[in-house]
Amino acid sequence: MSETERFLCEAIRLAEDNLDKGGRPFGAVVVRDGALVATGVNEILATGDPTAHAEMMALRAASRALGSPSLEGCAVYASGHPCPMCLAAMRLTGVKNVYFAYSNDDAAPYGLSTAAVYADLARPFAEQSMTIRYVPVRRPSEPDLYARWKRRQAGQA
Amino acid sequence: MSETERFLCEAIRLAEDNLDKGGRPFGAVVVRDGALVATGVNEILATGDPTAHAEMMALRAASRALGSPSLEGCAVYASGHPCPMCLAAMRLTGVKNVYFAYSNDDAAPYGLSTAAVYADLARPFAEQSMTIRYVPVRRPSEPDLYARWKRRQAGQA
Repeated sequence: MSETERFLCEAIRLAEDNLDKGGRPFGAVVVRDGALVATGVNEILATGDPTAHAEMMALRAASRALGSPSLEGCAVYASGHPCPMCLAAMRLTGVKNVYFAYSNDDAAPYGLSTAAVYADLARPFAEQSMTIRYVPVRRPSEPDLYARWKRRQAGQA
Repeated sequence: MSETERFLCEAIRLAEDNLDKGGRPFGAVVVRDGALVATGVNEILATGDPTAHAEMMALRAASRALGSPSLEGCAVYASGHPCPMCLAAMRLTGVKNVYFAYSNDDAAPYGLSTAAVYADLARPFAEQSMTIRYVPVRRPSEPDLYARWKRRQAGQA
């Protein structure tokens, strides 16, 4: 069994355990240099937190384990196709390699696919199901918000 | 001042407060029926959690406040353009209206734009900076993972 298959089996095992405990059937592991760094399972039903997807929980646990919000050099093995939120989170943390065992096609007959969310979010903002509006309100702060951030980054504030 | 402007000003005020406390300059509020439900600020620097964007914290706080992972009927007002992770999270929770005060164009000169992440994630999977691979590993479980989920949903497991 390859390393990829081994870690995907572990993600699926986590998903099965979570299902047995009353949760949704999703698990994920974060791996670096061939070693398991952290694991996560879908905790939405247990916590009511809509962002508690398995991959998000694994990323958060990995950042705690590594002491850094950057997960450069890490790979994610997920039981199911990561949804757009989780995929974007991986992208933000610097994860470069993602593997999954159950596709959205595998998941669709069971109501577990996120393909529609991908399709919606891939549309131009004006055509998405959500309305997203830029309203350039400014508070009377001097200097302006982002200029203050830049100044602080430069050690001047 | 319109309701939209008022809630965006509140999101910016939260961003300013967070900046003053050493955090990144992002704030967000969740609103339902014209009333503020929850707020969030970017807590990455304070917590090391790479998913602790202002909008994510506000969504999570809103789900706690409302006692549900569904935020149907809620709007999000964010100081900055929500990144793909946060936007997808809003989409997943059923948020239909999103407003932001600082665009990615406003943010780019200060290194705070997420436009490149949007562009990368909008590419076909094969062309993105992350490698995303479907490896249909299965564990020898009978019935299979998602079939077990469906069976439980139907009250048979």
